[in-house]
Amino acid sequence: MHALVFHGPGQKAWEEVPAPRIQQGTDAIVRVDAVTICGTDLHILKGDVPEVTPGRILGHEAVGTVTDVGDAVQNVKVGDHVLVSCITSCGACRFCRAGQYGQCLGGGGWILGHLIDGTQAEFVRVPFADNSTHPVPPGLSDEQMLMLADILPTSHEVGVLNGKVRPGDVVAIVGAGPIGLAAIMTARLYSPSHIIAIDVAESRLAAAKNAGADITVNSLNENVLDIVRGLTDGLGADVTMEAVGIPETFELAIDLVRPGGHVANIGVHGAPATLHLERIWIKDLTITTGLVDTNSTPTLIKLLASGQVDASPMVTHRFGLDEFENAYDVFARASETGALKVVLSAPQL
Amino acid sequence: MHALVFHGPGQKAWEEVPAPRIQQGTDAIVRVDAVTICGTDLHILKGDVPEVTPGRILGHEAVGTVTDVGDAVQNVKVGDHVLVSCITSCGACRFCRAGQYGQCLGGGGWILGHLIDGTQAEFVRVPFADNSTHPVPPGLSDEQMLMLADILPTSHEVGVLNGKVRPGDVVAIVGAGPIGLAAIMTARLYSPSHIIAIDVAESRLAAAKNAGADITVNSLNENVLDIVRGLTDGLGADVTMEAVGIPETFELAIDLVRPGGHVANIGVHGAPATLHLERIWIKDLTITTGLVDTNSTPTLIKLLASGQVDASPMVTHRFGLDEFENAYDVFARASETGALKVVLSAPQL
Repeated sequence: MHALVFHGPGQKAWEEVPAPRIQQGTDAIVRVDAVTICGTDLHILKGDVPEVTPGRILGHEAVGTVTDVGDAVQNVKVGDHVLVSCITSCGACRFCRAGQYGQCLGGGGWILGHLIDGTQAEFVRVPFADNSTHPVPPGLSDEQMLMLADILPTSHEVGVLNGKVRPGDVVAIVGAGPIGLAAIMTARLYSPSHIIAIDVAESRLAAAKNAGADITVNSLNENVLDIVRGLTDGLGADVTMEAVGIPETFELAIDLVRPGGHVANIGVHGAPATLHLERIWIKDLTITTGLVDTNSTPTLIKLLASGQVDASPMVTHRFGLDEFENAYDVFARASETGALKVVLSAPQL
Repeated sequence: MHALVFHGPGQKAWEEVPAPRIQQGTDAIVRVDAVTICGTDLHILKGDVPEVTPGRILGHEAVGTVTDVGDAVQNVKVGDHVLVSCITSCGACRFCRAGQYGQCLGGGGWILGHLIDGTQAEFVRVPFADNSTHPVPPGLSDEQMLMLADILPTSHEVGVLNGKVRPGDVVAIVGAGPIGLAAIMTARLYSPSHIIAIDVAESRLAAAKNAGADITVNSLNENVLDIVRGLTDGLGADVTMEAVGIPETFELAIDLVRPGGHVANIGVHGAPATLHLERIWIKDLTITTGLVDTNSTPTLIKLLASGQVDASPMVTHRFGLDEFENAYDVFARASETGALKVVLSAPQL
């Protein structure tokens, strides 16, 4: 088969590799029908995630069709159309038993395209298939479902739930890429009074408006601090979220929050930030970091089916599965191409 | 009267000043019977709290006797023996209505010895006396009660409650000064399995044992990370607390916590720390900062009366009220003098 293989920082190729086979009884093999590229893949290519070693097939998001299952798999069968979640779960360790699948100690967690070969391929081996896939309900498209592999649960859990968004809150989201946009969509579920989206690209701010932001701020030429404080009796936002992954945006998220507020980091970071404890020790802040657990994915699937959440309008570019190098290029040059989510699809069987 | 007056970083004097008078109908004037010095006062003298301006009387902890009340005071009367809390509360602003008195917007919060003259004096004016004092129950000594002015509620709320200590948790507390010791005492209320106290002074580690620590670690000559991981299946502590107020100890508290754990900063900081987001973005951490609200003070008074919490054994040195300069010297040189809490008392009337 062919797959997109990482060859060290800055290097990758769509090349022929051995097809995956069942290794454990709990594995499934999934033919990839639709797959996307995540901002995290760009972080990997920058060298921000050193655990990813050369030779690794990238990708941790897919919708596909099961072609083989191990003898211990109980609920997934050949021919099933499934979402491959970015998080794999053993289901048995202390963290999985607490619903914290992202921290799985039993060989799961975020492993696809990270510690084992991933979904940017014609076929992928999915460990713990019973716990790590979700059936695609009738009537939902692959593109709609694909947005539930990572970005919607990530923004919902690591941004909105960790940030404890409540009705009436003013929520400021730094970064209006796919993760920021998904944070806007899922924050709306909790009825904030104002969602403020902050970015430096007008195209992303326009997308933020479409996703449900009430106010957009271009931090290149507007004073974000003044705008947020002006809306909040001078105090700052109730909840801020970091959805970029660089120190400056994290530090901005800290500056924008009110005393007693929540700062939810969603971004993948490759460098440390400065935490101004001399200013914030007194401010009753709660700062959270996190990898998604995907324990809200079943809820999000129901909300997608009922039409309450749908991130597929953020798919801006579509490619064939063999056009990965082009797709990466378009996605990486998002500020020029306007790319939000790109989807690569296999030919219909 | 006499008072301990701040004259800029490194400078203070016990000198004659005008006695305080009622300024608002909600004020009380309290004769100071017993008062202590807080680590925060040392931070002020270092210049870490620039809001404190020269001429300010320091101190935010006292037990005393009411000598005058404004005409709007309803529940406090002349002759009452009261605890003067480090936090003053207007009772009416959005934060006070939510029990977040430390963030009071109505002229309260931490103001004594900070924004208005404090308790290190013969008399102190206490604004919003109805909300900012607590009657001393019969049978409790001034020294016992004085530990409830700041350290016990601070460690309980900002350390133990923010850190969400639960039964069975492994709790690591960095710093075994008065705040760290009070954190040990109040963490015990929630039945952790192990409390690990970390410091560089053997005398403080001995005090930590007396306060209820199960394990003490001298970080000068022991590997804290190995010890904590050895107790926690290699994962780290469920809850860590920073009780010193310097970047290194905050960073250690972050390093010692497990995935999904809580890091509660209690220390007063004068400099920024480095937050290694490149390591912790994936770890599901919750990091909290805070100023005490003293909303748990009534509970702590009941626990003191029932004998379940008593921090007065950490009083190591006693002075007369006119011996402030000596008391500061003994407290500041704690590593040599072994001082934990020092108490200065007025002559009995």
